[in-house]
Amino acid sequence: AGRAGNRIGRRGFFVSLEGIDGCGKTTQARLLVERLARAGHDPVVAREPGGTQVGDLVRGVLLDARQLKMRPMTELLLFFASRSENVEQVIRPALDAGRVVVCDRFTDASFAYQGHGRGLGPEVVQSLAELVLSGLQPDLTIWLDLPPESALSRVRVRSGSSNPADRMESLGTEFFGRVREGYLRIAAGEPSRVVRIDATARVERVALDVYEAVVTALESRG
Amino acid sequence: AGRAGNRIGRRGFFVSLEGIDGCGKTTQARLLVERLARAGHDPVVAREPGGTQVGDLVRGVLLDARQLKMRPMTELLLFFASRSENVEQVIRPALDAGRVVVCDRFTDASFAYQGHGRGLGPEVVQSLAELVLSGLQPDLTIWLDLPPESALSRVRVRSGSSNPADRMESLGTEFFGRVREGYLRIAAGEPSRVVRIDATARVERVALDVYEAVVTALESRG
Repeated sequence: AGRAGNRIGRRGFFVSLEGIDGCGKTTQARLLVERLARAGHDPVVAREPGGTQVGDLVRGVLLDARQLKMRPMTELLLFFASRSENVEQVIRPALDAGRVVVCDRFTDASFAYQGHGRGLGPEVVQSLAELVLSGLQPDLTIWLDLPPESALSRVRVRSGSSNPADRMESLGTEFFGRVREGYLRIAAGEPSRVVRIDATARVERVALDVYEAVVTALESRG
Repeated sequence: AGRAGNRIGRRGFFVSLEGIDGCGKTTQARLLVERLARAGHDPVVAREPGGTQVGDLVRGVLLDARQLKMRPMTELLLFFASRSENVEQVIRPALDAGRVVVCDRFTDASFAYQGHGRGLGPEVVQSLAELVLSGLQPDLTIWLDLPPESALSRVRVRSGSSNPADRMESLGTEFFGRVREGYLRIAAGEPSRVVRIDATARVERVALDVYEAVVTALESRG
């Protein structure tokens, strides 16, 4: 019912990729978009936070290492500010034009990170999702599942100015474990929307699993 | 009842200064703090947005002239992100220590600017105030009332990098008129909390009116 409800008045298809830091989302989003394009689709990429002028500025605030002591509620509001712009400027226009939107994280990340990982609880995230996004949800969510230890070691070997380790490293595997538990609960509660994919496999194997899940969902549309 | 409720478990006093751009809030906040200090109080100044690391970064995003096309909901979320930090890091600790807090704008500004000026409506602002701040309200709000035409001409003669005219000027007097109407409604609905002061008078006259309103409220505390 939720998925049908999201498609009233539009013809597009909204896919989100989720998972803890280091799970390979960004790489898999790129590979998925390339494969969809080769198959004749005209996909749109979105990412969180960022993707809009406001979103990129908010991303800068969130990734700033000095902000480690930010209140979890503040972090949640900044993510929703970025998401608000992303939905209005990128996601809804693309869906209205009938395109496939591939989004690197969406509201599930707020449930997993701020709601579960930081302990704000699911209710406040749900309230914001309804206030800000009128409850817009992806048609399909790919959850790239990876044990926290593997994820943290992947993040640690990265480098460069956009390195998420700046903010995430000090949080440790206990935090990532709580975030993963958050994703487990979302997947258990919405099995028709959320597909879990084993992200410990090789990149090409994961990419194939992701693409097959998306094609299956696209073909099963009413 | 609301004011008493805010003081459960603390001894401080929370004053906010409100009004449209150019009404003299910032000057009056400074004069009020100086006068309170001379009278033996130990006041704390807060301002919105800003006043914390996160708040100052959010202020930069909000004042950026390129962001004129920001969705009103996004703007509202950014103000509440800054307010969230301000309350936890500055306002609540000061109130818990029994101090007088003078805040240059608070949630009423969101009602007047985003709720009324930009048309989001009061309900969404109220929902965020409850979610983010547990409904914390000032004990006293000084509304510096000025006709939009006077306010706009005051803003236009300012200069410098922190010039609010960057964002506000293109909005014009019609927008400021709606914001003022928002403040009128708040004042009408909560006459025991909100004191309207004529801000067309000379700075020293206004400062005296502000100080008298604060002293009267401080003395009438249970």
